[in-house]
Amino acid sequence: MRIPPKLESKVMDPEDVFKKILKNKKSIAFGGMGGQSVPKIIPLIFKEHPQYFKGIQVYSGGGMTKSFDDAMRNIEISRRFYYLSDKKSRDDVNNGKTMMMDYSVYKYSKLLSLNSMDKIDVAVLEATEVNSKGIILSLSVDATPALCNASKKIIIEINRSKPVLTGLHDITDINSVREHQFKKIISRIGKRELRINQNKIAAIIYSDGSEESAASYGKPPEEINSIAENIWSMLDEKIKFKNTMPVQVGAGSIASSLIDKSPFNDLKIWCEIAPARWTEYIGHKIKYISASAIYTLQGEEVYTKKFMENYLDYSGNIVLRPNYITNSPEIISGLGVIVLQQAIEIDIFGSANVSHIRENIYNGVGGSIDFCSSGKYVAIVMPSTAMNGKISRIVPMLSCVDIPRMLVDFVVTEIGIADLRWKDPRERAVEIIKNCVHPNFKDSLLRYMNYLNAGHLPYNINEIIKWNKN
Amino acid sequence: MRIPPKLESKVMDPEDVFKKILKNKKSIAFGGMGGQSVPKIIPLIFKEHPQYFKGIQVYSGGGMTKSFDDAMRNIEISRRFYYLSDKKSRDDVNNGKTMMMDYSVYKYSKLLSLNSMDKIDVAVLEATEVNSKGIILSLSVDATPALCNASKKIIIEINRSKPVLTGLHDITDINSVREHQFKKIISRIGKRELRINQNKIAAIIYSDGSEESAASYGKPPEEINSIAENIWSMLDEKIKFKNTMPVQVGAGSIASSLIDKSPFNDLKIWCEIAPARWTEYIGHKIKYISASAIYTLQGEEVYTKKFMENYLDYSGNIVLRPNYITNSPEIISGLGVIVLQQAIEIDIFGSANVSHIRENIYNGVGGSIDFCSSGKYVAIVMPSTAMNGKISRIVPMLSCVDIPRMLVDFVVTEIGIADLRWKDPRERAVEIIKNCVHPNFKDSLLRYMNYLNAGHLPYNINEIIKWNKN
Repeated sequence: MRIPPKLESKVMDPEDVFKKILKNKKSIAFGGMGGQSVPKIIPLIFKEHPQYFKGIQVYSGGGMTKSFDDAMRNIEISRRFYYLSDKKSRDDVNNGKTMMMDYSVYKYSKLLSLNSMDKIDVAVLEATEVNSKGIILSLSVDATPALCNASKKIIIEINRSKPVLTGLHDITDINSVREHQFKKIISRIGKRELRINQNKIAAIIYSDGSEESAASYGKPPEEINSIAENIWSMLDEKIKFKNTMPVQVGAGSIASSLIDKSPFNDLKIWCEIAPARWTEYIGHKIKYISASAIYTLQGEEVYTKKFMENYLDYSGNIVLRPNYITNSPEIISGLGVIVLQQAIEIDIFGSANVSHIRENIYNGVGGSIDFCSSGKYVAIVMPSTAMNGKISRIVPMLSCVDIPRMLVDFVVTEIGIADLRWKDPRERAVEIIKNCVHPNFKDSLLRYMNYLNAGHLPYNINEIIKWNKN
Repeated sequence: MRIPPKLESKVMDPEDVFKKILKNKKSIAFGGMGGQSVPKIIPLIFKEHPQYFKGIQVYSGGGMTKSFDDAMRNIEISRRFYYLSDKKSRDDVNNGKTMMMDYSVYKYSKLLSLNSMDKIDVAVLEATEVNSKGIILSLSVDATPALCNASKKIIIEINRSKPVLTGLHDITDINSVREHQFKKIISRIGKRELRINQNKIAAIIYSDGSEESAASYGKPPEEINSIAENIWSMLDEKIKFKNTMPVQVGAGSIASSLIDKSPFNDLKIWCEIAPARWTEYIGHKIKYISASAIYTLQGEEVYTKKFMENYLDYSGNIVLRPNYITNSPEIISGLGVIVLQQAIEIDIFGSANVSHIRENIYNGVGGSIDFCSSGKYVAIVMPSTAMNGKISRIVPMLSCVDIPRMLVDFVVTEIGIADLRWKDPRERAVEIIKNCVHPNFKDSLLRYMNYLNAGHLPYNINEIIKWNKN
């Protein structure tokens, strides 16, 4: 039984939900993150009736799926929070058709929880069961608890193709985090259910939709083997890594592949989001995973399926939490998490841009500043070039700084490792250029250094303009 | 008795300390912060024998005093960590004579505690007593515990002109923070003494030097009354401030004057450093102060003196802690501190520069990123102009970003309040220009907006160059 008898009256078909609840609503929130456990039925209503949602504000838990973004394609969205996963929504934001603020994952949940805006009309989430205590979620917790808190009504899609995933989640109210502490990253401090005021439940819909892969993440870069090798040597040689130290590995294909090459066993992973394939490593390479969602990379659907079928075997090793826990500066700092953060580009002093390509937003800042501001050590990890080697990802100056230089301890590319600790900005530049820049760009960057006048954080605007024109 | 009998053999005069311990040493650390409790005797040795300290590395707990900087004036310092307080040391850094990395207050203590570099030869600190348990410090705890941990030897200056300040400090090891939690900001979790391995004590010197005012902080700006009014309305109207919420007020003259104008009573101040004058407010405007040091602003020497004479009266209300506690993201985030952060300039999207004037460093980043990344709400607070109104502190683009835009919720100047929450970058720009920019620059910035092409975070480099030439 997926719902208690007293909620049976709430079960509706999508057309009724549209007519009775959604039609002409001004703001709507969707749970789901990294394409995982995104609602599957309600978005189709938007696709069918775009004219009733003109100018709507859309909140989501994180990056969504191709199907979701496809359903949103014909809607005029006035505001979108806070993370993008497809070209159309990116274009709308960059063209000024849709307003968007790229909050960090933690800040977003926090602002939602602080009631800093008008209540959202409706939140829609995917669950595996509703029982008398609350909602048993699926493979993503993400911002769903915060979105439910900030919404007037809640629509639940119960996905019957999944098992009831009781015991995988650890859900705490944002305000009671302080009352608890994590002894181990796996120690549960909250409840197995998302507890909400049941009067808020406006409708329940049954779905059978299968999961898609995450729309935001591409294939691993060709240089992935060398990047991985350099990362694991950096951990080993520079910080004498021990597997008692929790590691955060950012989301996406680099992150996923990194673990394949890990020479360490029994890793403790404290992260925002974990690829399903990592569940295969439990018991040897990985000991524990604490994340906000388990997501599926392209071609890795089988791992998600297998994990769901056998999730009880992992209940002592994997736990899913709200992202105000996974991304909390308080907890990241307290646990001493070692942070491996991906970036689009960095400047020669170590500041990073993770969100923009020139003036255009790509996905958004995600959890970068949450982890980088509070991690025990912070390494920026990326290939040295982009666009098939045509441009350097290490540049004289950034137009968009998401992570300031002071927070960054190491830079790692396929070329090598830069250790920035205790170095002056000019020494940092030399260290980065010498060890991390691709040979095709090394001379140009060293030449740029010659154009710099005095100053602690020097730049030469004319040379920067030339650099950007090349 | 200021020292136990078994340490009497360590008492030396300065000339002996020079000959037996300091001569030709390569690295030295000085406790003290914001000009408070900076060692007074040892710096004079540097002044007298500059030729024996060529190329030395100097670490300090924070900003120092005029006397200290004066004593360092003739030394060739190869490296300086991590905060500057006078023109000469600034010039040396900006001219490339002295290398310097402007770590945040917390990161600095953390890197020192992680043993991420060669041990420092000697740490020098001011104390009021050494007893069998440890060292009773003076009015600054700052990075002293971390510096002692990172140093091979310790020299203690006991200042006999001060009372033995037992009971004012709360000193915890950086690694045991997690084992404790603060119920109230005043709850003590550590020891009254700084506990060190007594074998590290290389010398004890008696001093009688009186305190100076902090070298880093100038006079409050003329607009201070209007800035203060706007801040207190922002707290009242925008976040429904209650005096159960701890507030951080940045260091310096604006900070100090802010409290004078506070309409709230019983404030709980959780900050890096507190001006001595605030101690006068205990019992009405202020209930508790937790800080790393109590510093003296120019002309306010009398408050420091009075506080020291009657410090026991305040022992339930004021506590001094290491700056890895005051500036810990874990604790700031856990307590939900409301952050009022000063800046040199901001861009139109809300990112802030707190450390540089063009390519030249001013003081350093201080605790800005520590507080801004973890605070419950973050407001950037500054006058709208600099150089007697000649330049706007709100500019199209920053060359140095210390605090990225996503972290900032409000901007407050003497002109008004900008509420940036849930706003798109372009909306943020309009909000800031409309509410916070000085009338003399409003039209130029609005005109700049017209030159922007599409894009989520747009800029126009040619117009920026023109702006900087004006």
